[in-house]
Amino acid sequence: MAPAEPFHSDIEKGNPAPNLIIKGGLALTMTQEPMMISDATIWVSGSRITAIGNARDPALKAPYEAEVIDARDSIILPGLINNHTHAAMTLFRGMADDLPLHQWLFENVFPAEERYLNDASVYYGTLLACLEMIASGTTCMADGYFFEDAVVRAVHEAGLRGLLAQGIIDFPAPGIPDPKENVERGREFIERWRCFSPRIVPGVFCHSPVTCAAETLIHSMELSQEYQVPLQIHLSETAQEVSDMVSRWGKRPAYYLDDLGLLNADLIAAHGVHMDDDEIALIAERGTKLVHVPESNMKMGSGTARIMDMLKNGTIVGLGTDGPCSNNDLDLFCEMDSAAKLAKLADLDPTSLRALDALRMATIGGASVLGLQDQIGTLEKGKRADIITVDLNRPHLCPLYNPVSTLVYSATGADVKDVVVDGKILMKDRRFMTLDSREVMTRVRQITEKIRA
Amino acid sequence: MAPAEPFHSDIEKGNPAPNLIIKGGLALTMTQEPMMISDATIWVSGSRITAIGNARDPALKAPYEAEVIDARDSIILPGLINNHTHAAMTLFRGMADDLPLHQWLFENVFPAEERYLNDASVYYGTLLACLEMIASGTTCMADGYFFEDAVVRAVHEAGLRGLLAQGIIDFPAPGIPDPKENVERGREFIERWRCFSPRIVPGVFCHSPVTCAAETLIHSMELSQEYQVPLQIHLSETAQEVSDMVSRWGKRPAYYLDDLGLLNADLIAAHGVHMDDDEIALIAERGTKLVHVPESNMKMGSGTARIMDMLKNGTIVGLGTDGPCSNNDLDLFCEMDSAAKLAKLADLDPTSLRALDALRMATIGGASVLGLQDQIGTLEKGKRADIITVDLNRPHLCPLYNPVSTLVYSATGADVKDVVVDGKILMKDRRFMTLDSREVMTRVRQITEKIRA
Repeated sequence: MAPAEPFHSDIEKGNPAPNLIIKGGLALTMTQEPMMISDATIWVSGSRITAIGNARDPALKAPYEAEVIDARDSIILPGLINNHTHAAMTLFRGMADDLPLHQWLFENVFPAEERYLNDASVYYGTLLACLEMIASGTTCMADGYFFEDAVVRAVHEAGLRGLLAQGIIDFPAPGIPDPKENVERGREFIERWRCFSPRIVPGVFCHSPVTCAAETLIHSMELSQEYQVPLQIHLSETAQEVSDMVSRWGKRPAYYLDDLGLLNADLIAAHGVHMDDDEIALIAERGTKLVHVPESNMKMGSGTARIMDMLKNGTIVGLGTDGPCSNNDLDLFCEMDSAAKLAKLADLDPTSLRALDALRMATIGGASVLGLQDQIGTLEKGKRADIITVDLNRPHLCPLYNPVSTLVYSATGADVKDVVVDGKILMKDRRFMTLDSREVMTRVRQITEKIRA
Repeated sequence: MAPAEPFHSDIEKGNPAPNLIIKGGLALTMTQEPMMISDATIWVSGSRITAIGNARDPALKAPYEAEVIDARDSIILPGLINNHTHAAMTLFRGMADDLPLHQWLFENVFPAEERYLNDASVYYGTLLACLEMIASGTTCMADGYFFEDAVVRAVHEAGLRGLLAQGIIDFPAPGIPDPKENVERGREFIERWRCFSPRIVPGVFCHSPVTCAAETLIHSMELSQEYQVPLQIHLSETAQEVSDMVSRWGKRPAYYLDDLGLLNADLIAAHGVHMDDDEIALIAERGTKLVHVPESNMKMGSGTARIMDMLKNGTIVGLGTDGPCSNNDLDLFCEMDSAAKLAKLADLDPTSLRALDALRMATIGGASVLGLQDQIGTLEKGKRADIITVDLNRPHLCPLYNPVSTLVYSATGADVKDVVVDGKILMKDRRFMTLDSREVMTRVRQITEKIRA
């Protein structure tokens, strides 16, 4: 876009009448220029931002009969983007913490998934996750799980946006007892939902190069490219996984995937904790997207991804929470804080991963990971109206020197006041507009009562 | 205390009539037995807990005309204890982040302190910190700063509890231009406030063994022992500090302090990031208390304290946030989460520092650091009534498998519903009862307007 003129921003005469106006706050556009607009007014018409600028702009003063979000004493910013989660794992949140990884996974998570996952439980588990995301300012997610049709229904009902991917693994899996069918079931899933909603992109998620055979990986990538959607995968999360790959195939995971033709700009790789210099250079060269998952990597004792090196190499990096069974929340404000602090610790350098870097990862960076950088991730005329406000009238957000520092180092998701996705209000003054939180929590408690027993 | 009988806990006939009753929630007592009481009722008479048990206990059913806190769908637990902060640094929160340590301290913090600290600014800065602590469930703090008289007035007005310590440093300091007077001014401070309130323990805080001469350190310890209050100090926060000590004195900081007679059970040492095996063994042997400050140590790029080794050696460990200029918040729920995750990362072991270990550090561990373990830190008959409730009716706290996991890994301070200190309600249903948050924020904004300009 062309640089903005003072007080005129990108507003022109003849904008369509807004049906929603957000006004009065400090807008952090996350564009290069203007980065901040004080006393901002944003017009939303249908699903898109049709004007953004300072309230003094005469073009923004016209009296329209629009719904108004009062953003005085608030920061207005693009909705946050969670690039890696398994939303329905809310069902298992806090079920099994502080355990050795093998015991956690094989004695707790996998058996619980096998026994308790079904269309209904995944639906309600995802609705609960959607409530949590809305309550903490996340407007878009990249999800991967089983019974993903239920995830689509829940995310659609909540009004959120997402790349929602059917899980593919070469073991008998929840909903897909015969692994021979997993890629075909992925194709059916994409076919079923690809024209369903502008907010939903259906895709597939290969569990990992350790748990999927070469053929499965190749077919999944072919499928993704056929439908022009990104392929998600777990990559080099644990040291064990890397040494298993090396002993089985004689090469580290990134090289293994590259030899299969998977390491390209359509691949979204989550974690990337154990990557050597060559692998970091290779994913940058191939344009593979990387999702940083700092809190899960800490809690699982996996290690620290070399995010600063990846950014320096030009890799596009987003931020993810992982599933709520390994974090244990979906709050991207806390995750930004952890990402910034963890990089400083890893490098023993307080200038590593500045607050603005972390906020970029959770907004325009996250949008770029999903290939949606022209649609979301900034506040700009023409983009989808995925917008949140953060209430500054809280003791811990006072005083305000630098709004980016305040958001990353002091705010939590609980400070989010309003949430708009695709022009529709999902939360206003902390009241949920699309979902009944009591009802969803009651249903999840009923489902998990059996697990607890 | 004797082990509890079922449904009778420690309730006896003839308890004084309660003036406050907290009832209906799941009580996490943080005692050995019973650790949890479902459908709990707690009687508070004056400043103390006079009965605690299950609601079915007949002795708890008597109809008293007491004020009631409805804790249904909540966890009831001891108020959290922040063992290391500089509360009034709320004034500088977010003023200078992501900078090299030297630039942060010498070009930003020290000049701002010199120019803007005075009795009034410290008073309002501390009131703001008190609001934030109340809002996030902290009921007791160990503070160290300048103009500490203003801190005492603010903490007293807020209704919080604290070890509040006048700062001592061998440079011209805010309020103490002549360092020769610093210990004497500490004595006057303790004299002024030692009989003031059962909630306030006045003390002194030596900045560090690098910034205080041997004589100052020795006199400060003598002063603390004369008045039988703990002495606070920063210890081995940065690698630079340790190498400075070694080159100046030929020994590492813990040995240096030990040779001066400071390393004893009256010393509370904050940070302890760079301590070798011998130092860790030595502080355990001497009974010195250690305050873990994980988020500040991450954000400053200082490193990771070896908390598991210290705990294994038997050292009493508490948890602190540091000042809000280096964190940037005072939320101990987030700090517990960070402490647990950081230990797992440091040890590459998901079983390190379990949720319960982190919660102990922030409750009974913190009380023990302050020497107040007979007064606070657990929910027990006879203890001071420092009690908080956490509202479970939030999507991110659902479902509930393990309340300790939920508190440490999923909750933030924003989930705290009610706060009681010394039997007095400071927050009810998230409404502040002792302070006017709008007024305090307005005053702080006025003060910091000058700093921003």
